[in-house]
Amino acid sequence: MVKKQYKVAILGATGAVGTRMIQQLAASTIPVSEVHLLASARSAGKTMTFKGESVTVEEAKPESFDGIDLVLASAGGSVSGRLLPEAVKRGAVCVDNTSFFRMNDQVPLVVPEVNEKDLAWHHGIIANPNCSTIQMVMALEPVRQKYGLNRIVVSTYQAAGGAGQSAIDEMNAEAQADLNGEEFTPQILPVKGDQKHYPLAFNLLPQIDVFEDEGYTHEEWKMIHETKKIMLGDKNSPDIKVTATCVRVPVPVGHGESVWFEVGTDQRPTVAQLHEVMADFPGLVVQDDPSQQLYPQPKTAEGRRETFVGRVRRDLETPGAYNLWVVADNLLKGAAWNSVQIAERLVADDLVRVPEHNAELFL
Amino acid sequence: MVKKQYKVAILGATGAVGTRMIQQLAASTIPVSEVHLLASARSAGKTMTFKGESVTVEEAKPESFDGIDLVLASAGGSVSGRLLPEAVKRGAVCVDNTSFFRMNDQVPLVVPEVNEKDLAWHHGIIANPNCSTIQMVMALEPVRQKYGLNRIVVSTYQAAGGAGQSAIDEMNAEAQADLNGEEFTPQILPVKGDQKHYPLAFNLLPQIDVFEDEGYTHEEWKMIHETKKIMLGDKNSPDIKVTATCVRVPVPVGHGESVWFEVGTDQRPTVAQLHEVMADFPGLVVQDDPSQQLYPQPKTAEGRRETFVGRVRRDLETPGAYNLWVVADNLLKGAAWNSVQIAERLVADDLVRVPEHNAELFL
Repeated sequence: MVKKQYKVAILGATGAVGTRMIQQLAASTIPVSEVHLLASARSAGKTMTFKGESVTVEEAKPESFDGIDLVLASAGGSVSGRLLPEAVKRGAVCVDNTSFFRMNDQVPLVVPEVNEKDLAWHHGIIANPNCSTIQMVMALEPVRQKYGLNRIVVSTYQAAGGAGQSAIDEMNAEAQADLNGEEFTPQILPVKGDQKHYPLAFNLLPQIDVFEDEGYTHEEWKMIHETKKIMLGDKNSPDIKVTATCVRVPVPVGHGESVWFEVGTDQRPTVAQLHEVMADFPGLVVQDDPSQQLYPQPKTAEGRRETFVGRVRRDLETPGAYNLWVVADNLLKGAAWNSVQIAERLVADDLVRVPEHNAELFL
Repeated sequence: MVKKQYKVAILGATGAVGTRMIQQLAASTIPVSEVHLLASARSAGKTMTFKGESVTVEEAKPESFDGIDLVLASAGGSVSGRLLPEAVKRGAVCVDNTSFFRMNDQVPLVVPEVNEKDLAWHHGIIANPNCSTIQMVMALEPVRQKYGLNRIVVSTYQAAGGAGQSAIDEMNAEAQADLNGEEFTPQILPVKGDQKHYPLAFNLLPQIDVFEDEGYTHEEWKMIHETKKIMLGDKNSPDIKVTATCVRVPVPVGHGESVWFEVGTDQRPTVAQLHEVMADFPGLVVQDDPSQQLYPQPKTAEGRRETFVGRVRRDLETPGAYNLWVVADNLLKGAAWNSVQIAERLVADDLVRVPEHNAELFL
């Protein structure tokens, strides 16, 4: 039997996540016969490199997906909402890194180490969760599997790169202006389309994405509902209580998260027992030795596919509650690598096909 | 009656906090007849300015406190431990910004808006709490007074300046090297006296102060025990459960804190009701309007004496639990201003005197 080769399209190929999707795809186990790099009209004609070969960026249109087997998308929610149904209609299976389809009941939301099983019921689109959600469920899933999870209280320390390369560029320019004692007028952060913009360099911005109901930002809502959908299969499940505060910090790449959680059983695991289940979990690396000042940091996580967990401690006054600190490269495990990893599993499980009756499901 | 004038000594006058103590003292209501600026032998002879007058820095020695009424100290714990008992012996009342005496049962630990009453029983030394503790109790005390407090889970975003001016300088030099694509070898952060040093610029360091028991850092222990001593008068009180994760972030001045808390009664205050008690609390400013993207930021809190609170939200799944975000200038309300504010209250309440029988209490 001839090993199947895949024609892959990367939608949003020129962005911070898209460029990393190209690299991660090149380094993946997926046999790629053709790669198509799609972007907005503005980027069309630019050349990029895939496995040493020059590839010209094309403007993304519905017809761009003719003959494509697999799509990796990270060009923004509205682009995915418009174009991915066209790709599915043409028979392509799409891994979407935007939030557009994440809460759609017809769309699996997948972190492969946690819920690869959900790939089996896809209808043409698989959603890649939000970066901050992915690394948190990576750290907590081994705990949940062994000891259950009753409650999560998370505070995030999110890197500029989560808002794209332009946000990193703005932060760096701001930092340089600040060091020079010069003025700088931010135009992107905290949210490009929002009314006001604030400096991130040497500052903290407790707003990621737009504000929604009850004073929570969209990012905070995502962490609450996506966590439940990934871990429990139900975005509104009361079985794990989740609350979140999301803060942008002046770091280019690599999100940190301070997580307080309560286990769901009467068992009271020791820190050593938590380390053990975490160390056994694929893709999760325990970096936790206070005597050696070993703990996860964005600078040491950048460029790595793994998720790093440390500072695991018992809450000294609440039996069954614990604190931890988790860091991952938000553009890799939080986005490009998790998407390519989903695609690898789809290929390995022979799931790169759209059932015919689903072709119009998302139109 | 002639208004009393005070002879004031500032111990550690050349540091990040000491220089701000000079400014805050100059801008205070305290009638100062003489100011003595004390520091290590290395800084002796340097001249600084107080209310437009040039003052020569002297080397701090026991005899430096002869004739002094009030001492403001911020030269490190071991210096306070050695010299403040000498000052008390000589009749001076000391406001100490180090952690040396904070847990001493003979020493009030005071945030004036919260527990000014504890000044009445001082024995010559009053401790200024840890910067991260001060701003948290400022935000939560109005809630506690009206609705009680059952539990606090706090994650901090602490500025480099908490580790002194040299830490700010190191972070800035690192940031410049990073922007230039050059190497930089950190020698101060996360903790000057610890074994390893890591870059803070464009990074996150989940270690503040040295590691102690149970995997908690000394900073985290401080937040747990100081909060209870300030709010309840007992550092080991079980009446408020506190757990903390402290993280250094690449910001020069201004700590942020994400706080999840449960009220202690069956009342379920609305966000508007919490805003109301917070807005009425002296020194606390509510900056909380998502529709205007109004929330506390280090850049807008720097140089201000107030504590700023925002992002107040109900925990949507746990009745009686809430999230908030609080920012203050850690070198002012967190240190220099809170110390001078304590001194102002001591003066106003005629408490600038050491009871004779206490003169040797701390020796």
